[in-house]
Amino acid sequence: MHKLVILSEYEKIYRALIEEARLDNLQIADLPANDVDIALGEPQRIKAALASLPALSWAQSLWAGIDPLLDSASRRNYVLTNARGVFGGLMTEYIIGYLLAHERRIFQMAEDQGNKNWNDSDTGTLRGKTIGLLGVGSIGAGVARAAKFFGMTVRGYTWSSESSADVDNYYHVTDLLIFARGLDYLVNILPNTKDTRKIINADLLNALPSHAFFVNVGRGTAVDESALIDALKRNRIAGAVLDVFEQEPLPQDHLFWTTPNLHLTFHTAAPSKPEDLTRLFIENYNLFAEGKDLKYRVDFEKGY
Amino acid sequence: MHKLVILSEYEKIYRALIEEARLDNLQIADLPANDVDIALGEPQRIKAALASLPALSWAQSLWAGIDPLLDSASRRNYVLTNARGVFGGLMTEYIIGYLLAHERRIFQMAEDQGNKNWNDSDTGTLRGKTIGLLGVGSIGAGVARAAKFFGMTVRGYTWSSESSADVDNYYHVTDLLIFARGLDYLVNILPNTKDTRKIINADLLNALPSHAFFVNVGRGTAVDESALIDALKRNRIAGAVLDVFEQEPLPQDHLFWTTPNLHLTFHTAAPSKPEDLTRLFIENYNLFAEGKDLKYRVDFEKGY
Repeated sequence: MHKLVILSEYEKIYRALIEEARLDNLQIADLPANDVDIALGEPQRIKAALASLPALSWAQSLWAGIDPLLDSASRRNYVLTNARGVFGGLMTEYIIGYLLAHERRIFQMAEDQGNKNWNDSDTGTLRGKTIGLLGVGSIGAGVARAAKFFGMTVRGYTWSSESSADVDNYYHVTDLLIFARGLDYLVNILPNTKDTRKIINADLLNALPSHAFFVNVGRGTAVDESALIDALKRNRIAGAVLDVFEQEPLPQDHLFWTTPNLHLTFHTAAPSKPEDLTRLFIENYNLFAEGKDLKYRVDFEKGY
Repeated sequence: MHKLVILSEYEKIYRALIEEARLDNLQIADLPANDVDIALGEPQRIKAALASLPALSWAQSLWAGIDPLLDSASRRNYVLTNARGVFGGLMTEYIIGYLLAHERRIFQMAEDQGNKNWNDSDTGTLRGKTIGLLGVGSIGAGVARAAKFFGMTVRGYTWSSESSADVDNYYHVTDLLIFARGLDYLVNILPNTKDTRKIINADLLNALPSHAFFVNVGRGTAVDESALIDALKRNRIAGAVLDVFEQEPLPQDHLFWTTPNLHLTFHTAAPSKPEDLTRLFIENYNLFAEGKDLKYRVDFEKGY
């Protein structure tokens, strides 16, 4: 018999969904419980419970980002899997939505409407534009597929992998500025690691054309925030939309709230649906029960 | 030798593009010219020139809408072809862009940003939603394909044709209200004919769910404008975006400018690119020169 503890602010929802699935040999337990071998929850709640889970053998994070559990002082003698594969569709909708909003000038149209101004000047199109994806994992591959659907050219920047057939050209490690040159759109989907911190800095922003538009749905730590504010204020790039920030919620006195040509959303690009995450948990539980390799296992050293 | 007259506000651009193509046996002429057999231009300019084109054998409209030439008092002893197949990509971008803007609440997000309000409530998704297309010609088929790409269910309302494989269910003639029931999105792409005038009226709007969103990229005449204003004011539907109107430019005192939950654009959904339209003209010219059937021939009786 396996014992699961659910460490989530949505504990009741996950409990109901998992009970409904009637998984073999699985019992849902409460803390403290010396014999719990499985944990499901948000990373910071799992971290807080680690000391009271001596028998923990597998933890499934409900989030993609698992920073709290990477802390080198934390225990690592268990298998950590994170949430992947469930955000792709929503992320793609978010990114394509803001790209189209930019091309079709929908904020400008709304302003013209307010001014009763029949402004029939031409709008743009995604067809023929070039998008650069910083990170091409499962989410990036979905974005690449949508970009191809709309007739875009797709560049991918990765450490080494070249797994998506929808990416026209791959760039690696030291090619970052070459990757950036000529992009119409730069989209960050990278996880938070020591190599990705402030990867979107003044050098990268300066390598972009002045009409480029930047989207960050990866992690807030990937952006040098003052360099981005500076680039937007000086019209070094045309605009940006950010969903993630170094500090969340964004502090009231943060300059991002009022930076020109900057759109903010509130870590809402890909809300995780309990149904999708429960499906992922069940899939991994069945692998776990059979002693097989789990999906989306995190490498504590690499950090993703 | 064929003789072409270009009747367009962009005459110089089309002249340059066509000269560049060096078409066999084609000479570009100026009015008046008794031996001109081909006209290329905007419908109202072609109409104005009809009397001075006694030898006209074929007219290629630069627009999809050819109402001025359908006037029953006008000559019809020539082949009229209109612009089709060149707007699909842009129309699709426009429609998907506004659908995503609605699902992702991007206007609300912009307002929250202005209020420094970290509003991380959930947003919606196109996946699983149902879109109803009024009209499934070449543009509708492209929209259907994009809707399927985003995981939507697609209904098509047509007079009889069922040519797009991306439409899950077809509805015809008397099934209009059945077609409308349960739609998340209603999109009008119908041409202007006697059967499509005010097809979007109080009955149709009342058949939609209250969360439905309406998009008009077809013709302004398809909408009963006061019924739509009423439906939006009473929250009978959630919102709408209109690109075309009974009268364009929209008069300064029109209620549409300030109707709640209504977004306006300015007949900008699918700007016609001279390069695309010239390609269409050349394709048709080659068919014409060989005595073959032309593409996108208008039936004067049907009106499309």
